[in-house]
Amino acid sequence: MLVHEDRLFPSDPSSRAIARNLYASVKDLPIVSPHGHTDPRWYAENEAFPDPATLFVVPDHYISRMLYSQGIRLEDLGIAPRNGAATAPDPRAVWRLFASHYHLYRGTPTRLWLDHTFATVFGFSERLSAQNADAYYDRIDAALRTPEFRPRALFERFGIEVIATTESPLDPLKHHDTIRKSGWSGRVITAYRPDPVIDPDFEGFRDNLVRFGELTGCDTASWNGYLEAHRQRRAFFRDHGATSTDHGHPSARTMDLSKADAEALFRRVSTDAASPADAELFRAQMLTEMAAMSVEDGMVMQIHPGSFRNHNADLFRTFGRDMGGDIPTRTEYVNALKPLLDRFGNNSNLSIILFTLDETAYSRELAPLAGHYPALKLGPAWWFFDAPEGMRRFRELTTETAGFYNTVGFNDDTRAYLSIPARHDMARRVDCAFLANLVTSHRLEEDEAHEVAHDLAYRLAKEAYKL
Amino acid sequence: MLVHEDRLFPSDPSSRAIARNLYASVKDLPIVSPHGHTDPRWYAENEAFPDPATLFVVPDHYISRMLYSQGIRLEDLGIAPRNGAATAPDPRAVWRLFASHYHLYRGTPTRLWLDHTFATVFGFSERLSAQNADAYYDRIDAALRTPEFRPRALFERFGIEVIATTESPLDPLKHHDTIRKSGWSGRVITAYRPDPVIDPDFEGFRDNLVRFGELTGCDTASWNGYLEAHRQRRAFFRDHGATSTDHGHPSARTMDLSKADAEALFRRVSTDAASPADAELFRAQMLTEMAAMSVEDGMVMQIHPGSFRNHNADLFRTFGRDMGGDIPTRTEYVNALKPLLDRFGNNSNLSIILFTLDETAYSRELAPLAGHYPALKLGPAWWFFDAPEGMRRFRELTTETAGFYNTVGFNDDTRAYLSIPARHDMARRVDCAFLANLVTSHRLEEDEAHEVAHDLAYRLAKEAYKL
Amino acid sequence: MLVHEDRLFPSDPSSRAIARNLYASVKDLPIVSPHGHTDPRWYAENEAFPDPATLFVVPDHYISRMLYSQGIRLEDLGIAPRNGAATAPDPRAVWRLFASHYHLYRGTPTRLWLDHTFATVFGFSERLSAQNADAYYDRIDAALRTPEFRPRALFERFGIEVIATTESPLDPLKHHDTIRKSGWSGRVITAYRPDPVIDPDFEGFRDNLVRFGELTGCDTASWNGYLEAHRQRRAFFRDHGATSTDHGHPSARTMDLSKADAEALFRRVSTDAASPADAELFRAQMLTEMAAMSVEDGMVMQIHPGSFRNHNADLFRTFGRDMGGDIPTRTEYVNALKPLLDRFGNNSNLSIILFTLDETAYSRELAPLAGHYPALKLGPAWWFFDAPEGMRRFRELTTETAGFYNTVGFNDDTRAYLSIPARHDMARRVDCAFLANLVTSHRLEEDEAHEVAHDLAYRLAKEAYKL
Repeated sequence: MLVHEDRLFPSDPSSRAIARNLYASVKDLPIVSPHGHTDPRWYAENEAFPDPATLFVVPDHYISRMLYSQGIRLEDLGIAPRNGAATAPDPRAVWRLFASHYHLYRGTPTRLWLDHTFATVFGFSERLSAQNADAYYDRIDAALRTPEFRPRALFERFGIEVIATTESPLDPLKHHDTIRKSGWSGRVITAYRPDPVIDPDFEGFRDNLVRFGELTGCDTASWNGYLEAHRQRRAFFRDHGATSTDHGHPSARTMDLSKADAEALFRRVSTDAASPADAELFRAQMLTEMAAMSVEDGMVMQIHPGSFRNHNADLFRTFGRDMGGDIPTRTEYVNALKPLLDRFGNNSNLSIILFTLDETAYSRELAPLAGHYPALKLGPAWWFFDAPEGMRRFRELTTETAGFYNTVGFNDDTRAYLSIPARHDMARRVDCAFLANLVTSHRLEEDEAHEVAHDLAYRLAKEAYKL
Repeated sequence: MLVHEDRLFPSDPSSRAIARNLYASVKDLPIVSPHGHTDPRWYAENEAFPDPATLFVVPDHYISRMLYSQGIRLEDLGIAPRNGAATAPDPRAVWRLFASHYHLYRGTPTRLWLDHTFATVFGFSERLSAQNADAYYDRIDAALRTPEFRPRALFERFGIEVIATTESPLDPLKHHDTIRKSGWSGRVITAYRPDPVIDPDFEGFRDNLVRFGELTGCDTASWNGYLEAHRQRRAFFRDHGATSTDHGHPSARTMDLSKADAEALFRRVSTDAASPADAELFRAQMLTEMAAMSVEDGMVMQIHPGSFRNHNADLFRTFGRDMGGDIPTRTEYVNALKPLLDRFGNNSNLSIILFTLDETAYSRELAPLAGHYPALKLGPAWWFFDAPEGMRRFRELTTETAGFYNTVGFNDDTRAYLSIPARHDMARRVDCAFLANLVTSHRLEEDEAHEVAHDLAYRLAKEAYKL
Repeated sequence: MLVHEDRLFPSDPSSRAIARNLYASVKDLPIVSPHGHTDPRWYAENEAFPDPATLFVVPDHYISRMLYSQGIRLEDLGIAPRNGAATAPDPRAVWRLFASHYHLYRGTPTRLWLDHTFATVFGFSERLSAQNADAYYDRIDAALRTPEFRPRALFERFGIEVIATTESPLDPLKHHDTIRKSGWSGRVITAYRPDPVIDPDFEGFRDNLVRFGELTGCDTASWNGYLEAHRQRRAFFRDHGATSTDHGHPSARTMDLSKADAEALFRRVSTDAASPADAELFRAQMLTEMAAMSVEDGMVMQIHPGSFRNHNADLFRTFGRDMGGDIPTRTEYVNALKPLLDRFGNNSNLSIILFTLDETAYSRELAPLAGHYPALKLGPAWWFFDAPEGMRRFRELTTETAGFYNTVGFNDDTRAYLSIPARHDMARRVDCAFLANLVTSHRLEEDEAHEVAHDLAYRLAKEAYKL
C-alpha cells in the first residue's frame, strides 16, 4: 500500500484511535492556501502540464538538490544552464534517473508528498522504482493529457477554497486579470512580495526601481515617490485579491530612522552600489515602512528571514537563482524586531506573521514574542521544517508559551501544485497526532482537541490572512 | 474530570504503569521550594486573599501576557497604569473576561496549573468557561473568606517543608522577622538578590547605593566599603534563614579584574552614568565577587541570565516592570563563565546553580560544564520552560552528559502561591515519566528509578540548597 | 539482568517488534570502525591489559569527568599530575571508589557501555556497586591475564573488520609497521591528524614544524616545503592504510587566500608567536589546502570543530591535555565553509565528513549543506551526543533534509577499546528504533527499513571511508 490510512499517527493504540477521530473530522475540510508559489498562468491558461519529468522533477528543488548532493548533474535532470547551450535530455530519461534514485528520499517529506500524489491523484499502489519507472511515466503522461488533469480541474478536485500566489510589485498581474475575467469560480489571489524593489542586493535592483517608477508614474528616485509607488502597487495588488505582503530578507532586522536619515539612506542605495551595511539597513527600514502601510491598508505582513540565498556560487553562475543552494542561517529576532515593535508591536489591528529557518528561535524568541505582542503571530514550520518531525518540533517548542491561537494554521508555500493536497494532509495528520498525545496525557480534553484540530486545519488560516 | 490521575504519564501502557508506581512513591513528599517569589507579608500577616481576580489574574504574567497577545488591554484585566489614573475594573468583570478566554491556554502549563488548583484546592470538576465563570467566582470568593484559605493554613495543607522568598539587600526583612517571632511553625526563609545594588542599569541604582550605605553603615562610595556592605547584608540575610543568593543578569558574563581595575570600574559606575560596556563589566565582576563571598560564607549562588527585561517599551512606560514583556535571548556560557571558573570552578565547597532561557545551551554548554566542574550544578527548566515539554527537553538534553546528580531538583520560582502544589506535582510527574521511559527501554532498572525519583522530588533540592 | 535484549527499543509493542526484526538482521554484522583513538601499540605488542582500574577508569574521560564533577580528586582515580610527584593509588582502591559512585552514571551512555561490556565480555549479571566491587575486580583482573583477553583475541572476538587509529604526521607509525609485519590478519589502519603541525596554538607548534621538516627532508620553513611535507606524510600514511584525514579545529572556518597571502601568513605563524587572528586564519587556510590535497590523493576529510580545549586552566596546568575539560561551543558552518565550498563543494570525488558539538547546526546548517553539496557528508552524533538521545536527535534533525544517504554510518571515536562492541551495538539499536518508528507511522516500508538498517550499520561506513 503506497499510503496507509494511519500514516503519521502515534503508534500507541489509544493515541492512534484519538488521532484517527480528530483527523476524520478535518480531513475533508477545504484547502486554504494563504501563501505559496504556484504559477498563476496555470489557472489563467488552464493548459495541460507537459510531462511527468517536467511536472515533478525539473522545478522541484527538494528533488533536485537531493540528487545533486549525490553527484547527479543538474543538466541530466533537465535543468537548463543560463547560457542555454545544453540540449535538454529526454523527459523519460530524466524520469528514469529520478526513479532509480527514489531510495534517496527515504525518511524525507518529499517521499511522503510524492507517494501521496502518486496514490491519490494517479491511482498508483506500488512504490516507484527503476523497474516500474516506465509504467509510472506512461500512466502519468497519459493522465496529464486528459481534461481532468488540467489545472482548474485539479483545483476543484483538490478542494481548494482559495490559493494565494506571490508576485513582484513589477508584475502586471495579467494572469490574475485573465482568471478573474474568465468567469471560472476558483479563487486565486496574489500577494505582494516587494524584495526586488526593496533589497539593494537583489539582481537588477536599480533597474527595478526605474521600472517601479514607470509602472506607477511615481518619482522613484525620491524617497517620497518611492514610498508612494509602494502604496499604489499595494492598492493594485489588493484589487487583485491580495490580503498579504511577504518579505524574504537575510535577517529579521528592522529599523526606525528619522525621515531625513531614511531619505539619505534611500539616496545611497538607489544611486551608488550600496555597501552591505547600507543594504541591510535599508531592508530593515523598509520592514518598518511596510508595517506602517499595513497599519493603513490592513494587509497582513509575512516575514521569511534567514536564508543565505545562492550559497553555491558556481551553481548560481551557471544556472541562476533558486537552484537548491539556499542555506538557512542563525537568525535573531528579539533585538532585530525591536525598532518595528516599538512603533507598532502593541497595535492589535496589525498582523505580522513570523517564520524561521532557525528552530532555536521557536522556544527562545518567537513563542515568547508572539505570546506577548498583539501584532505578532507565528507562521507554521517553514521550508526544510515543513515535514513531520519539523512540524512536531514547531508545536512542541511553541505551544507551551504561545498557545495555539497565536499561530496561523498551515501554509504549503509550494510551487509543486500537485503536492498541495499531500502537504495539507500531512499538516493535518501531524497536528492531530500532536493533539492526540495531549489528550492521551490528559493535558487537553477530547472535545477541545476537536475544536483545535478544526482551527489549525481551516479557521486560523482564514482569519489570520483575512480570507 | 478536571485533573486525571494519569496526566503527563507516557501513553504506552507498560511505561505508564511504571510511571504510576514511581509517582505513587513521591507524590506525597513534602514540598521543598528553594527559590521563588511569594510575598513574605502573606505568611507574616496571614490575611485573607482579596478575591479570585486579584488572586489569580492580576499578578500572573503567564495569564495576562497571553490575553494581551490576543488584543485584550491590561487595564481591563485590573492592572493599574503607573499614573494610577484609571479606575480599576470590577474583579468579577476581570474574572469573566479571563474565563471567556480560557481556551487560549490550551496546551500551556498555565492551563494545567489552574485546573489542578481549581480541582484540588477548590473542588471544581468542570472546566472553567464563560458559562460557569460566575459559579467559579462565587465559590472561590467564598472559600477565600474562610480560615482554611488563609496563607498559613494553605502552607500547611500544601505540605510545604520550607519555602524561600527573594529579597533585595535594601529590604529590612520585617516580614521575615514577624514570621519568626509569631511562633508559627512554617519555615519561610529569604534569599539574597542583589541586582538593585549590582546592576548599574537597574532603576535607581545610584540611589540604591546610598541606601545600601545607610543600611549598613558602610562607605558604599568606596569599593571596599561597598563589598563590606554586601558582606554585612549577606550575614543579615543568613540570620533570616537565607542559604542562597540569586543573580538575574542579561548575560552570564563574569570577569576577574585586578583590585585596582575593579575599584576604578566601581568609581565609574557609581558616580557617572555608566556606559553599557561598563555596566556589563561591573555585573560580570560582581558575579566573581559574589562567588568569592560564597566561598567564605557558604551561600549557594544562583545565576538566572539571558532575559531581555522590559522589551515592550510602551508597556514599560505605562505600567512599569514585570508586565510580561521580558523576552529570552541567546546566552553564551563557555566563554562567559571562564573568568569565574578559573578562580573558583574547582572548588567543590562552592555551589553555583546555572539556569537558562536558551535551551540550545543545555546539551552544548551547560551539561558539559556541570558534568565537569565541581562548583557547577544545573537548575531546573526555567520560566517559559517550566512546562511538560520544557522539562522533558531539559532531562533529554542534560542527563546523558551531566547525569541526574549534577542537577538540583525542582524550583517553582513563582509568585502564584496557590499554584505551588500544581507546579511541584507537574515536575514530579514529568520526571517519573522520563524515568519510566528509561526503565521501559532498559536504560535503568526500576529500583534505581525509584531512588532517582525520590532524589529529584526531594533530596537534591534540600542538599543543593543546604536546607 | 544487566543488559536486556530489548534495550533501547521503542516501548510500543508494534514498534518494538519491528525494531527487533531490524536489529536481528544487523546485530552480527562485522564492526567497521573508521575513526577512533585506540592505541596501535596494543595490536602491535598484544600484551595483557594491566588491571581493571587502569583499563576502565584511568584513561576514560567520560568516567573521570563525572566523578570529578562530584568532588572526587583526579589523583584518587590514579591520574598522575604532570610533575609526577604523587604516588599512584592502589588500582583496587581506584576501582572501589569508582564502584561506590556507579549511581552517578544513571541515564548516561557510560553506564550502558559499561554494563554491556561487563555482561558480554566478562559475563557479569549483577550491577556494579560498592558491595560487589571486589568481586568485579577479581574476576576482571583474572580474565585480563588470560590469552583470550589480549588485544588481538578481543579484536577477533569483537568481530572487527577494520579499525582506524589516529596519528600525528610526526608519528613514525612503528606500531602499524609491526602489526603489518607480524602476519596477524587484523586490519588496523592509521588516519592523518595534522593538528600538531597545522594549529599554531598547539603546544610545541614551532618545534613540531622543525621535526616535520626533519622527518620529510622538506624545507618546512617555506610555504612550498611545508605543503610538500604534508603531501609526503599523507602518502606515508596512505602506505599504512590511511584513507582519511581528521581536523580538530576550534571553529569550522575555512579560507582561500592567494598564494602570496598564504605564504605571508605562513611566515608569520611559523616564526613569530602568531596572533589569535592569524592562528585562526591559518587553520582556516589549511582546511582548504587539505581539501586540495584530498582532491589529488583521494583521502576522505573529517572536520571535528567546535571544542574549547582545556577549558579548565588549573587542570590543564596540573595534569595536561585531555582531562575532561573540553567544552563544546557554538559553531557556525554556512559562512565558515563557504571559501572551501566555493573551490571544491561541487566536486563529487571529494568527500568531506562534517561533525558537530553544536546540535543547533543539524537542522539549520548541516543537513541543508549536506543535502545539497556533492562534496559534503554528515558524520554521526559525536562525543557528548554519542548516546541514545543524542543519536535520536541526530536522525530526527537531519533525515528529513539530508536523508540517510548523505550520512556515513557510525564512528565509535573511542580510546576505550573494550567499549567498542557496546558502542556499535548502541548505534545499531537506536537506528533500528528510529527506523521502526518510521515504519509504524507508515513513513517507510519494512523492506526498505531493513535495507537502511544494513546501510547504517555497515555499508555506508565502508563506502564513505573507502574501506
